[in-house]
Amino acid sequence: MLEELFKPRSVAVIGASDRPGSLGRGLALNVLSSFKGPVYLVNVRGGVVLGRNVYKRLSDVPGTVDLALIITPSSSVPEVLEDCGRVGVRSAIVYSGGFSEAGRGDLEEEVVRIARRYGIRLLGPNSVGVVDTETPLNATFVSTERQLMPLKGGVSLISQSGALGSLILDLMGERLVGLRRFASIGNASDIEMWELVELLTLDAKTEVIGLYLESVKEGRRLLGALRRASTVKPVIVLVGGLSEAGSKAASTHVAALTTKARVLDGALSQARVIRVGSLGEFVSVLEVLGRVKVRPKGDRIVVVTNTGGMGVLLSDSIERRGLRLAGLPEELISKLRSVIPGYMALGNPLDLSGAAPTSLYRRVVEELLSSKVVDILVVVNQPQTVAMDVDSFVEYAKYLGDSGIPVVILVSGSGYSRDLALKLRLSGLPVAFSPEEASIMVLALLRLANLSRGERGAEVTVPDEAVTTARKLVRGALEEGRLTLGEHEAKSVLRAYNIEIPRYELALECREAIDIAEKLGYPVVLKIVSPRMLHRSDIGGVVMGLRDPGTVASECSKLLELSRKADIPLTGILVEEHVEHVAEIAVGALRDKLLGPTVMVGLGGYMVELLEEVAFRLAPLTLEEAVEMIKETRIWKLVDGYRGVKLEPVKLAETIARVGKIVEQVEEIEEIDVNPLALTKEGKLVALDAKIKLNPH
Amino acid sequence: MLEELFKPRSVAVIGASDRPGSLGRGLALNVLSSFKGPVYLVNVRGGVVLGRNVYKRLSDVPGTVDLALIITPSSSVPEVLEDCGRVGVRSAIVYSGGFSEAGRGDLEEEVVRIARRYGIRLLGPNSVGVVDTETPLNATFVSTERQLMPLKGGVSLISQSGALGSLILDLMGERLVGLRRFASIGNASDIEMWELVELLTLDAKTEVIGLYLESVKEGRRLLGALRRASTVKPVIVLVGGLSEAGSKAASTHVAALTTKARVLDGALSQARVIRVGSLGEFVSVLEVLGRVKVRPKGDRIVVVTNTGGMGVLLSDSIERRGLRLAGLPEELISKLRSVIPGYMALGNPLDLSGAAPTSLYRRVVEELLSSKVVDILVVVNQPQTVAMDVDSFVEYAKYLGDSGIPVVILVSGSGYSRDLALKLRLSGLPVAFSPEEASIMVLALLRLANLSRGERGAEVTVPDEAVTTARKLVRGALEEGRLTLGEHEAKSVLRAYNIEIPRYELALECREAIDIAEKLGYPVVLKIVSPRMLHRSDIGGVVMGLRDPGTVASECSKLLELSRKADIPLTGILVEEHVEHVAEIAVGALRDKLLGPTVMVGLGGYMVELLEEVAFRLAPLTLEEAVEMIKETRIWKLVDGYRGVKLEPVKLAETIARVGKIVEQVEEIEEIDVNPLALTKEGKLVALDAKIKLNPH
Repeated sequence: MLEELFKPRSVAVIGASDRPGSLGRGLALNVLSSFKGPVYLVNVRGGVVLGRNVYKRLSDVPGTVDLALIITPSSSVPEVLEDCGRVGVRSAIVYSGGFSEAGRGDLEEEVVRIARRYGIRLLGPNSVGVVDTETPLNATFVSTERQLMPLKGGVSLISQSGALGSLILDLMGERLVGLRRFASIGNASDIEMWELVELLTLDAKTEVIGLYLESVKEGRRLLGALRRASTVKPVIVLVGGLSEAGSKAASTHVAALTTKARVLDGALSQARVIRVGSLGEFVSVLEVLGRVKVRPKGDRIVVVTNTGGMGVLLSDSIERRGLRLAGLPEELISKLRSVIPGYMALGNPLDLSGAAPTSLYRRVVEELLSSKVVDILVVVNQPQTVAMDVDSFVEYAKYLGDSGIPVVILVSGSGYSRDLALKLRLSGLPVAFSPEEASIMVLALLRLANLSRGERGAEVTVPDEAVTTARKLVRGALEEGRLTLGEHEAKSVLRAYNIEIPRYELALECREAIDIAEKLGYPVVLKIVSPRMLHRSDIGGVVMGLRDPGTVASECSKLLELSRKADIPLTGILVEEHVEHVAEIAVGALRDKLLGPTVMVGLGGYMVELLEEVAFRLAPLTLEEAVEMIKETRIWKLVDGYRGVKLEPVKLAETIARVGKIVEQVEEIEEIDVNPLALTKEGKLVALDAKIKLNPH
Repeated sequence: MLEELFKPRSVAVIGASDRPGSLGRGLALNVLSSFKGPVYLVNVRGGVVLGRNVYKRLSDVPGTVDLALIITPSSSVPEVLEDCGRVGVRSAIVYSGGFSEAGRGDLEEEVVRIARRYGIRLLGPNSVGVVDTETPLNATFVSTERQLMPLKGGVSLISQSGALGSLILDLMGERLVGLRRFASIGNASDIEMWELVELLTLDAKTEVIGLYLESVKEGRRLLGALRRASTVKPVIVLVGGLSEAGSKAASTHVAALTTKARVLDGALSQARVIRVGSLGEFVSVLEVLGRVKVRPKGDRIVVVTNTGGMGVLLSDSIERRGLRLAGLPEELISKLRSVIPGYMALGNPLDLSGAAPTSLYRRVVEELLSSKVVDILVVVNQPQTVAMDVDSFVEYAKYLGDSGIPVVILVSGSGYSRDLALKLRLSGLPVAFSPEEASIMVLALLRLANLSRGERGAEVTVPDEAVTTARKLVRGALEEGRLTLGEHEAKSVLRAYNIEIPRYELALECREAIDIAEKLGYPVVLKIVSPRMLHRSDIGGVVMGLRDPGTVASECSKLLELSRKADIPLTGILVEEHVEHVAEIAVGALRDKLLGPTVMVGLGGYMVELLEEVAFRLAPLTLEEAVEMIKETRIWKLVDGYRGVKLEPVKLAETIARVGKIVEQVEEIEEIDVNPLALTKEGKLVALDAKIKLNPH
């Protein structure tokens, strides 16, 4: 059915108009000039549009209509849709605005009700339309005088903003990036993003999918669809409008750090899409992945340039994206010496100087390729000196496109360079117009090579009885009317899920505290346990490093006194072994309103909110996914060793995945905050503190 | 004398050639077609070039030569320069390559020696030349067929990379950004960047200075020149090629965190220049500051758009740069209601929808301006629907440029939009071609408004006797052959400079330690003091939270045992009061090889290297400058309050400035590492630990 949106046998344009500048005229014009099947123009006023007779009602149309394009005033759309239903139309696009985006959610609901009643699948309202270059069909109202329509190709685009979508088509057109299909989903009242993603995943002619997202409906479904799509073709996503501050009044670290943007970031990484940060990057990546069919076999990037400064800026930009230029082996250097004048420095970037003719590029590139030391080649050509024989370079460039490795050309400047870029694109090469564009192209190629590498990987296993233990503790608390677990209870949940915790016992009075301390061995830590305290250390409710019974006794009394003064109901005093450690991490989980169970990892223990070095993923997650989370933060630096200890990433990944399991399996748990999770001198990870918040339902 | 580079009365082109494609021909062509005074062509081969007679030697030239342009093979340059000296030339530009950049530093030195002997000021070698649009003079060899030369205007440009410089001119030309002067400094063997900055500072016709830097010679002089320049006109700086990892083997935190890029970053901020991150940003900022003469009076940014999606992406990009869109007052909203159809949402960005004609833009902008709620206006116009009456908009845009506040237009797309952009630029408006360009333009306007606001501010004062105390301690250590101060000595230095330290005393045996502890009050901290230990806490040389004499005795014995086992020469055991605190900061200083005394501030105490939340400045620095350092890091979040304590920024600024004073005044000090600097529960800053490394000289 969705296929009919792009490949109908017949089309009706309802609201077709002859008024210059009207959208109804623009749409009719585009459809008539692109579509080869029957097109019926409909308008209550009748008459003639673009030299064709107009039917007053859809029921007057002589043939069957596969796809109805509705571009009438919003108030008339319900009636038009009823007409569609009555004559058996199964697919419709509503272009008209004036629905939920303009405060008329009621009208939109009415339209959807009618569509559902007749079994019509509906794109929009407030859509700019669809394009299919194969059918061919241009069912948009975009003015082709003002914006380009791309040639036929392999990139499909779905946009949540119509105008931005048509701008992207315009930019693709300028860059000669070929289009397969385009859809503007408008208000997505019926047909949603995830369905179109699934359609394009199955569409063999779609080689690359590009998505512009502004909000996420049916989040888990969309992310599932994206993950499936990205196992078979590159998916590039640009997200707009999600910047938003974290909730200030949040009671746990994880809640304070959770923002829509962060959770969606994590979820999109997990779906293995290529995320870009700007419109410019989006179009650059569509160009490079739409044009370059060969994938890099490794990450050795080499730059050949005729402009030292551009080589420098490109190298900077590549490093800012977390990549590095490859070193050139000695053997290659000596080979290059026979090609490059002796006084020139040889390195990467390989600077051939402004006087370099095409023949020098050719000889250097041949050496590089035959030495098999390059996985991605970036060729900078600034045609500024007349020494640069541009025509031969364009001729040579065709060969570069077939060299067996991905090649990106960087050309920058005004008209002359722009013309050169066009010629190179006609030769099938991706052209970057700035160092930043070249580096995002390189990054996308490398990301793609990594993404297409493997399976999702294994999830962590947890003991069968873990969930039973956790549920029992949780239900006990809920029965007592509590919405938090005590620290000792929270730690018992962690222990059940095989997360290491310090040895501890709960004392109800100070004499007992001393006995426990003697049993655990000194030094010990004392902590107030109360159902009513969250940031306990802030008020002095934790005392560390107690080395003998006398100190335990006196500090214990002080804590009792403190809780009396602060009028905090006391569950008891936790007596815990002291755990020496070199770094503090935070792991958390919560149920995101939009995307459900979500896990977080962050650096800095109690400083985690200050540092905001955090990463999110949806739960459940695999160990590989958890390792990727860690890589997104500076926690990864602990893997190289810090203060004599090396973090084993898989150990932390296991902890994250286990915390994810808890929130996945125990639905009464709303938030988990394991903080600090200490990295000990022995390289172990121990949960020194834990909070669990419950949801009453 | 430097003035003659740009405004000579007569010019000789030595190495002028008629060979097509040669640089000697390109240079001669550019000079002859731009310069109105006498031009003499010189070439040992004689003959005719571009229809003019060529002199074989400079001495054959009939008139005096103000400026010699030397474009002969590098090996002949010394002889040519001798000729110049003999006929009394005072200024020369050497275009030829093949000097220090190609491993021939000897040849370059010879050339400089000759120049100095004759009192010739020399630009280059390896320069692309200079341009002065007022003289006029185009003394570059850049092909005007391939790259544009900007029109006359107020922007002057100095570039360390010639080819990049000419590319920037090309891009300025395309964007109609007017040029005043251009200089490519090449290898800067004689005339250096700072001298040209001073020249352009004094040049009344230079309204904006743009600089492309790859390395820093005479760093303090350059930064001084930049600071003076930026008090009178905007200075925009792009730095290339400074990415570099910190030294791994560094013994102090500050040394490990010091990189060329970070120090230069800090120094450039201190010089109050506008730093940009890419070539694209550089040209965008040149455009906006070159074109917009009015400065914003506040930071209220308002966006008016006809494309919702572009508004969203622009708003995202503005937020990513640390800015925010202004809220619109209720009163204005109700006024706008009379202009904007009732069903449309009103906010910032103000989305007028794709159907908005110029008249709607006009009415909305009039309301915004008359309400005086806007300091910077960004107008997005995507001309995608035919409803957008582009000609009237261009007409209207002229008025926008005179509206009394800075206005930036955002237009994106292929040919049609590019033509619109050109028309808008001809109307004097700055045009951004992507949301990122628009947001950097806005940021530059705001930065400029802030930068031009004030004086450097006051330095911190330190007690007169501080330097005497510090020098005495330092010389004492050096006389004993030590290259570090003991912790107690380092802390004495800090105390002399009025930086707060905990109360402590040095014990030579454990009985004494108990006496000191009793005097200080419990809990106390014990620390090994030794000239040979740097990361002491990593080996357990620090014990905290000791609460009674028994524990002090036993822990003290353990420390003695530890130092015996580790074979560490022991100065004594430091007994120190325990300081409760909520956050840890690091402050440091060192002598940078390039830029001299430098200070650092960072977040995270012992984690500072992990976090890399650091900022650098040159010492001495003012309190205002130190406050700006803090703002560059997440330490600033402590100012809003953290765990019940608010950091007073000026207190931290004082500490930073005092540490800067120490390294400035005591030249034997190589590095200072105050870490952790604790933020106490009372909001005080106390140096819990300090290391000072000395330089033997």
